[in-house]
Amino acid sequence: MTDSLFEYGFTLRLHDTDAAGVIYFARLMQRAHEAYEAFLDANGLPLADLIAQGPALPLVHAEADFLAPIRLGQALRVRLQAAEIGRSSFTLEYLFVDLQDRPLARARTVHVALAAGNGTPIDLPQALRTALDGAVIR
Amino acid sequence: MTDSLFEYGFTLRLHDTDAAGVIYFARLMQRAHEAYEAFLDANGLPLADLIAQGPALPLVHAEADFLAPIRLGQALRVRLQAAEIGRSSFTLEYLFVDLQDRPLARARTVHVALAAGNGTPIDLPQALRTALDGAVIR
Amino acid sequence: MTDSLFEYGFTLRLHDTDAAGVIYFARLMQRAHEAYEAFLDANGLPLADLIAQGPALPLVHAEADFLAPIRLGQALRVRLQAAEIGRSSFTLEYLFVDLQDRPLARARTVHVALAAGNGTPIDLPQALRTALDGAVIR
Amino acid sequence: MTDSLFEYGFTLRLHDTDAAGVIYFARLMQRAHEAYEAFLDANGLPLADLIAQGPALPLVHAEADFLAPIRLGQALRVRLQAAEIGRSSFTLEYLFVDLQDRPLARARTVHVALAAGNGTPIDLPQALRTALDGAVIR
Repeated sequence: MTDSLFEYGFTLRLHDTDAAGVIYFARLMQRAHEAYEAFLDANGLPLADLIAQGPALPLVHAEADFLAPIRLGQALRVRLQAAEIGRSSFTLEYLFVDLQDRPLARARTVHVALAAGNGTPIDLPQALRTALDGAVIR
Repeated sequence: MTDSLFEYGFTLRLHDTDAAGVIYFARLMQRAHEAYEAFLDANGLPLADLIAQGPALPLVHAEADFLAPIRLGQALRVRLQAAEIGRSSFTLEYLFVDLQDRPLARARTVHVALAAGNGTPIDLPQALRTALDGAVIR
Repeated sequence: MTDSLFEYGFTLRLHDTDAAGVIYFARLMQRAHEAYEAFLDANGLPLADLIAQGPALPLVHAEADFLAPIRLGQALRVRLQAAEIGRSSFTLEYLFVDLQDRPLARARTVHVALAAGNGTPIDLPQALRTALDGAVIR
Repeated sequence: MTDSLFEYGFTLRLHDTDAAGVIYFARLMQRAHEAYEAFLDANGLPLADLIAQGPALPLVHAEADFLAPIRLGQALRVRLQAAEIGRSSFTLEYLFVDLQDRPLARARTVHVALAAGNGTPIDLPQALRTALDGAVIR
């Protein structure tokens, strides 16, 4: 992988797990969104500002594939990339790997920019588009 | 206990548990707050309206005691009562019991009514005070 | 829809929401899994027993589409159906509707039965297969 | 404060917040527990090992005081200290501060070491006691 990709690291904590002894599946989605928030931070576009100033960027689709058990205390890396950048929407992909670079899970989220008032799709803000362009594998 | 107390029932779900095999402690707090929200609903004061119209009612203190393990799939009842009702604050107590009425946990939350603008404590809204009065054990 | 489908109802609680004012996307996944657990309960197959006795039934895929904002205090129904039943795997679909039957979100989970020891796919237990057969729309 | 205290840093993420626009109270508890897990890691005692090898160390009490609003994107530090170390139990205290060192919240958790079989309180493992001793302010 190249330097242009964004990486986010975390350790799986007790609140991520469930009584089956491994990660609770929806917590992986949550960790993917943490990576997205850290990516926005790293690009000077904190999510709190986006929420305050608009446009709304609701998630319209999310999915995940679980490739191997993820356990309490495991150190993980999330590699985020922008898979599609449209006029008013974008798709992010997340690869979760362990410290030996073994893939443990994949996730994908689709976000749409909507006008605050009427919910009509609008153009992605230019600063966000620039940040996303920097996260495309070419 | 009398009929004047509010009861809320739920089944412990996988997302409430952790890899130690029992409830994750902070989820009990969350279940207590669900009981509080259901209590507000039952009194015609949905939390969404309070948040939209004010006053802000932030939680300033929360605590819980864990008396026995709580396991996945267990059916629980939460008994909510108003323990203290002040001019601008109130304290709720929650007793978690199983279907045999054995106590499993206790929780307590303290809420303060604050003016939207400057965060000054203000009088509890009368409708809320009435609801709380109905949840006092006498 | 017919009577053969399983329905699960809930009210969106504060812990389901986030600072953008609507449901936090991963909580919808969590609510879908609650519906799955309630479905298992209703068929005499509580998840706790499956976890204790095996086989392991890990989720290998999950996805959701968000069709409309879901807000604090909203009452929702989840309609669960079995979309595919294979030898060792099954796919559940969840439609989230409001009380006026308007679709708000869809979700889908794929589960695989694995042998406890070596993680090899094994046949779905017969009782589970029967329950799933009862949740197929024909 | 001295160098002997353990500090844990994090950024408040969207999943920590709720529709009232600030931290959901029970997520603060969760963040306190993350700090505890990081403290155990730093002392070579990962929680996963404690859960696997025993003794069970259930939380029997938790509490938190909320001193100021905590918002999405805020960077926080948690200062953990061991407040009481008994024969079979210990109390941890957590102070949450912002980057200007302003206190935002406090939390406290009480843990008891129990024998795996019968739930009788037993002596704290020596390695844990040593780690806790290193987190006492003198």
